[in-house]
Amino acid sequence: MDYQTRRVAVLNGLHYQDVRNKLTILGCGSAIPTAKNNPSGYVLEMNDKQFLIDCGEGVQNTMRQMMFRTTRLYTVFISHLHGDHCFGLLGLISTWGMMNRTQDLHIYAHKDLERLLRPLLDYHCPDISFQVIFHPIDPKKKAVIFEDRTIQVSTIPLRHSVPTCGFLFEEKPRRRHIINDKIIELHIPYFAVPSIQAGKDWTTKEGVVIPNGELTLPPRKSFRFAYCSDTGYKPAIVPQIKGVDVLFHEATYLEEFKESAARYQHSTAKQAAKIALKAEAGKLIIGHFSARVPQQQQFLDEAKEVFENVELAEDRKVFEFK
Amino acid sequence: MDYQTRRVAVLNGLHYQDVRNKLTILGCGSAIPTAKNNPSGYVLEMNDKQFLIDCGEGVQNTMRQMMFRTTRLYTVFISHLHGDHCFGLLGLISTWGMMNRTQDLHIYAHKDLERLLRPLLDYHCPDISFQVIFHPIDPKKKAVIFEDRTIQVSTIPLRHSVPTCGFLFEEKPRRRHIINDKIIELHIPYFAVPSIQAGKDWTTKEGVVIPNGELTLPPRKSFRFAYCSDTGYKPAIVPQIKGVDVLFHEATYLEEFKESAARYQHSTAKQAAKIALKAEAGKLIIGHFSARVPQQQQFLDEAKEVFENVELAEDRKVFEFK
Repeated sequence: MDYQTRRVAVLNGLHYQDVRNKLTILGCGSAIPTAKNNPSGYVLEMNDKQFLIDCGEGVQNTMRQMMFRTTRLYTVFISHLHGDHCFGLLGLISTWGMMNRTQDLHIYAHKDLERLLRPLLDYHCPDISFQVIFHPIDPKKKAVIFEDRTIQVSTIPLRHSVPTCGFLFEEKPRRRHIINDKIIELHIPYFAVPSIQAGKDWTTKEGVVIPNGELTLPPRKSFRFAYCSDTGYKPAIVPQIKGVDVLFHEATYLEEFKESAARYQHSTAKQAAKIALKAEAGKLIIGHFSARVPQQQQFLDEAKEVFENVELAEDRKVFEFK
Repeated sequence: MDYQTRRVAVLNGLHYQDVRNKLTILGCGSAIPTAKNNPSGYVLEMNDKQFLIDCGEGVQNTMRQMMFRTTRLYTVFISHLHGDHCFGLLGLISTWGMMNRTQDLHIYAHKDLERLLRPLLDYHCPDISFQVIFHPIDPKKKAVIFEDRTIQVSTIPLRHSVPTCGFLFEEKPRRRHIINDKIIELHIPYFAVPSIQAGKDWTTKEGVVIPNGELTLPPRKSFRFAYCSDTGYKPAIVPQIKGVDVLFHEATYLEEFKESAARYQHSTAKQAAKIALKAEAGKLIIGHFSARVPQQQQFLDEAKEVFENVELAEDRKVFEFK
């Protein structure tokens, strides 16, 4: 990074070196936990926010083992209501209650979850110091379900034995980067900076139009992450996730158990890799491994035959994406 | 063990060396899990049966990590309905369902547990291949709640913020041990052995009465185990647990947090030791440690000042009792 770019980064409130998104694996096993893997639980960190994706039993235990701080975790996305994706929610909420959490918690999940959990929350956590707000989602429909200033999250309808969706996390288009020296040189007032960041040209007092391209640099590419679990092989999702930087895709089985994968509506490692290839994903992470395959290297080997940039999920592993 | 005793042991279907009761610690933390301790979960093995006592979140995960086989686990006892003692039940049952368990599961717990869990079991585990049978207990009353041929279990009313009881596991008085050589020497028929084991004398054809003491040896002392968690200091339980071989007693706090112990109706390590001393327990195991005390050796040191034969519970530790 040259000197000017670095100065601009500072002006734009960003330290380029620090721009990192992270995925923390709390559990990447499938329905039955194993000695190595707990049921599903992932925390995505984007733009200094934390999103919990699925919450199988033991998520809070693993968080504590990792000394994982959840101070910016306000939002939970539950892909479907199989136990290995949601049985850890009650314990997590209960513990946050005992720790006097104050920030409200927003849970995006199939509508049945609130009906099932609310009586237990009322019984076990009657006096907690924050609200648990359920947002019912329809896993069969592709829709934007969450949005804030910089991020939006959409459902990705998947193929599974119960209503299930993945989630596409997208950073909203970023503002252009101001070239600080130009702003100073042209005596552009501070109030005008936002419109220039938004792409406007600048007209000097003398009436000379300075094109935006001379005042700014293009914005950093917006980060996109897709989470697809649990699902049978479903190429129909490819257009929606096209070009994602990172794709997490389930790989419950190996090709030798392809029939089981089809029967239970899960994917093989090879199928996950095929989706990554078709979607032109930057990177593929596979997880949700069946307890029937003790040597997880096999998943990796199989996927690599189709798609090179693939890594295995692993409980307590943290992936960083620059 | 001399030759005759060993022969008798074999005749009685027992290998003395193998007579062991076990306590497996699946989690001995308190309400909030820590890097070291999961919430409560214990399996007591007595007379080749397994009893699960409390089932906090992560019990099934730890079982799998330990490769712990539950083939003889038909019965669960839940001391009270705080989450750290029961949030793991749903996941455990669900997993057993997926593993096609056939043996029914009997759960002894406060009546509210069935009301809370049943809708979730119906939703998440509609097709499981075994029955889950709830047996409501009244934690405020001392009563025998479980009984089979060789073991009985009673509630121990405790002092806690919600209705809570401990459990006293008692081996029923054993039959006397037959002296094999005597049976052969006196030509005593096989059908008469049970009554001799029960203490009867034997009368020969010639009318000579052989006192039972010449035909048998005294039975092995029946094993007794008491589980007391969660509870404030409650010496009133001592008469019921007098002389137990092993006492598990909670020790959430150290004496320096005695006020917290009193306020939240938990015990200090010293108080646990006092109960063991008064009850003349053979051994004390302390657990349910607060996350506020990272150096658990302190619990041990404090308890040892009062009662010598004390050990710390530890996640994944197995205690064997001869």
